[in-house]
Amino acid sequence: MQDDSNEGNERAAEPKPREAGAAGDVAFSRRVPTGDNLPRDICDRCGFIHYVNPRIVVGSVVMHEGKFLLCRRSIEPRRGYWTLPAGFMEQGETTEDGARREAREEANADIALRDVLAIYNIPRIAQVQIMYRASLRTPHFSAGEESLEVGLFGWDDIPWNELAFPSVH
Amino acid sequence: MQDDSNEGNERAAEPKPREAGAAGDVAFSRRVPTGDNLPRDICDRCGFIHYVNPRIVVGSVVMHEGKFLLCRRSIEPRRGYWTLPAGFMEQGETTEDGARREAREEANADIALRDVLAIYNIPRIAQVQIMYRASLRTPHFSAGEESLEVGLFGWDDIPWNELAFPSVH
Repeated sequence: MQDDSNEGNERAAEPKPREAGAAGDVAFSRRVPTGDNLPRDICDRCGFIHYVNPRIVVGSVVMHEGKFLLCRRSIEPRRGYWTLPAGFMEQGETTEDGARREAREEANADIALRDVLAIYNIPRIAQVQIMYRASLRTPHFSAGEESLEVGLFGWDDIPWNELAFPSVH
Repeated sequence: MQDDSNEGNERAAEPKPREAGAAGDVAFSRRVPTGDNLPRDICDRCGFIHYVNPRIVVGSVVMHEGKFLLCRRSIEPRRGYWTLPAGFMEQGETTEDGARREAREEANADIALRDVLAIYNIPRIAQVQIMYRASLRTPHFSAGEESLEVGLFGWDDIPWNELAFPSVH
């Protein structure tokens, strides 16, 4: 069993936070909507049905000249720890688009994807991680907004004790 | 370009339907929540932030003695058409759990998963389909609640003109 207690990214776990200064309190009841077969959270005020879908994290193991690209996180959780470029997939993009976007945002890196390295399931937090094998298209990278620094590490130089999440291992 | 206009399953596309007889109307405004970088739908009444995540469909191509297991849909969309056992992944399960559950629900079939056959992206409807190769653990199957009938088809006998969704092809 791996300890995934700190798994996840900056977006909070369910239930979703309410916006500060909003009109009132969120008041969900858990019941089975008409035509469904599982209980869902339904807002008592507005009737909104909150279908909670497992969330997809897309990322990549980027190699360049035999070394691995790692980013040191500038944001919580796990600020200061090293991770792979990865994050929540957004609407309107493919898993590949998302993996490329995350490398661009976190490491200012232009990457070429090869194939799917692995699909990791973390059912406790309803997360599916799709990780690609990738390489740098150009040998340029730098810290993006969510990173303190970005570096290339040989296998033996990887800061194994300072990795952000169990799944990075 | 494939025509994916009928893609998806019984759960409606975003925005989510409101429950009949609910207290009031859903009233969402689209704006960037504090600390976020993309606009989201936020309920004007209760402040709920509706993060829309791409949804995961899990399913399987089940083979038995060289034939493929197909289910004829008993529900809309595409009632009467043939499809693979697949559906929306639920919280608390892995992608593998979900693929097995769908085969059980739709075909009363007990399947053994082999490996990931493919990951299909349909960004227009924010859907990621993860399809496994699988086989029947026992040679028993029958129509589940969402199927009119279930059958095994040799490659040449597959009802190519009566498949429910482009991605089934």
